Amino acid sequence: MASSVRIAIDSMGGDHGLRATLPAALQILTKHQQLELVLVGDEARIRENLAGTNHDRLSIKHSSQILTMGDKPSAILRQKTDSSMRVAIDLLAAKEVDAVVSAGNTGALMTAGCFVLNTLPGIERPAICKAMPVTEGCGYVLDLGANVDSSASQLHRFAQMASARCRVLHQVDQPRVALLNIGAEAIKGNEQVKLAAELIAADEHLNYIGFIEANALFDGGFDVLVCDGFVGNVALKACEGTAKHIASLIKQELGRNWRSKLWAGFALPVLTRIFKKLDPKQYNGASFLGLKGVVVKGHGNSNVEGFACAIEQALFEVEGNMLAAIEQQLALSIN
Amino acid sequence: MASSVRIAIDSMGGDHGLRATLPAALQILTKHQQLELVLVGDEARIRENLAGTNHDRLSIKHSSQILTMGDKPSAILRQKTDSSMRVAIDLLAAKEVDAVVSAGNTGALMTAGCFVLNTLPGIERPAICKAMPVTEGCGYVLDLGANVDSSASQLHRFAQMASARCRVLHQVDQPRVALLNIGAEAIKGNEQVKLAAELIAADEHLNYIGFIEANALFDGGFDVLVCDGFVGNVALKACEGTAKHIASLIKQELGRNWRSKLWAGFALPVLTRIFKKLDPKQYNGASFLGLKGVVVKGHGNSNVEGFACAIEQALFEVEGNMLAAIEQQLALSIN
Repeated sequence: MASSVRIAIDSMGGDHGLRATLPAALQILTKHQQLELVLVGDEARIRENLAGTNHDRLSIKHSSQILTMGDKPSAILRQKTDSSMRVAIDLLAAKEVDAVVSAGNTGALMTAGCFVLNTLPGIERPAICKAMPVTEGCGYVLDLGANVDSSASQLHRFAQMASARCRVLHQVDQPRVALLNIGAEAIKGNEQVKLAAELIAADEHLNYIGFIEANALFDGGFDVLVCDGFVGNVALKACEGTAKHIASLIKQELGRNWRSKLWAGFALPVLTRIFKKLDPKQYNGASFLGLKGVVVKGHGNSNVEGFACAIEQALFEVEGNMLAAIEQQLALSIN
Repeated sequence: MASSVRIAIDSMGGDHGLRATLPAALQILTKHQQLELVLVGDEARIRENLAGTNHDRLSIKHSSQILTMGDKPSAILRQKTDSSMRVAIDLLAAKEVDAVVSAGNTGALMTAGCFVLNTLPGIERPAICKAMPVTEGCGYVLDLGANVDSSASQLHRFAQMASARCRVLHQVDQPRVALLNIGAEAIKGNEQVKLAAELIAADEHLNYIGFIEANALFDGGFDVLVCDGFVGNVALKACEGTAKHIASLIKQELGRNWRSKLWAGFALPVLTRIFKKLDPKQYNGASFLGLKGVVVKGHGNSNVEGFACAIEQALFEVEGNMLAAIEQQLALSIN
């Protein structure tokens, strides 16, 4: 029998709060028998929403405050120390749980991660890593917004961390590492990217395959794609924005005339399936790599299915001993 | 009667060369009576392709070389001084024409622009500016890849140049200028963007409206969106890649079963119309702002329609006295 894994859920976080987090928690408990969940948040409201549902692998940890999207990230260290997000992180720091999952304020989660859990040796600030729905490969992209003006050595660290994650979670022996650039030739790009290419290519423990441009992002062919957080965040959001825009153009066309209305009936299920694949709420959570603890961030607008995915992702990271693998990989070049 | 405008066409440039550039030239000549075109390239091949078509506003300027996508940008200054692209730029430098349009090697065109035409006072390197198919507003985005690691003062110059262009070409009195960032709050972003926000906001001749995130790019609401060339290039290509990916997912679905095949007949015209709107080959050329001359770059893969758009864009820039407007705007804060 697999040994149990305990995960703390920031029940109050995200746009939908308890309405998304509780059903997701119950759903994922049923799926994974080795999982125990600690719901952190307002106990009375949690009990009310559970409506008498009892589960022997579910417990509640009361917290009196809620950290909102409008709060400054630093609030989690000062005014909101009894918020559900902070209490969840405290449980992880005290090793009472193995991981934390939250759909709340990203900046606050990052701040609590850095100052309460601390970062791994060699890491200044963790990177946000997410799998894109690529045609082939693991499709991890990082950093997606935690770091701006990343130095070449930070980009190298990102490559190491995501490679380690890919190896233990997907059994890929030599994950293919690429750098996001504005051309495929070596002369293209900015100084950080060119220098990072040298560092990563010279690292014998990484399998560097070269530059990839943003228009080839969905084609895949890489397991890890490394970029500065500013650039990664822009790329991710440009993809989201384009998908949303196309969906709305199609919707407009569907109401245009009788012919369009006729095919709307056929088209909608197909289009729904396609856009679901591209919807950031659906495809997994974002892992904060580089912290001394497993922290997964669900999309702020996570629905039940999306948040359940994020919990599952944290479970796999714990069971795959991701943290140990990342530490080992980083240690290979820290000396 | 409008006074005549002479434009030199790099006839040999682009993936389709003469097959795209000649029909585009003939098409656009018919549309604009004040336009004269100089086709630069291999005279024998041009005559062969024109197949006896004569036009009194069309002339040919022979050049013996072709600059390819594989050539280094610097080749245009040394080995390929008789290439169609270089000869076209030389005509512009000698004021024998009013503008140049090319679908060839971007780096070479930029190099010839900088070293043969020179840049305007205050401009280190021109910015690539293109209009995105936004829902509302002019939707100019710059820089799209000419500059990496743009300083805050460069970003400020980009804002000035595109504002001037927008004012004279679209009769927008106070073009709305935004900065591309990874969040809407003032604390977000990297140092250059934060500093650029201060510079642009403090410029009384610009109408600064704040930050815009990449997921809102197609919503518009701005006339000018300023960003570093690395970031802009990634954003543009991420949009292109997403549109291409969605188109291919839809295509896959269309062949899936009888039901899908049935609606394919209805869907295709509608989808074609939508994806055409988003196809970079279709929506205009890219203007090199900051050069002492009007230079418009058509997409490398421009078809006839796309290249005709690029020629028309150059015509409007000449007729709108864009260069003078940009120089005036730059002069306002150079002192």
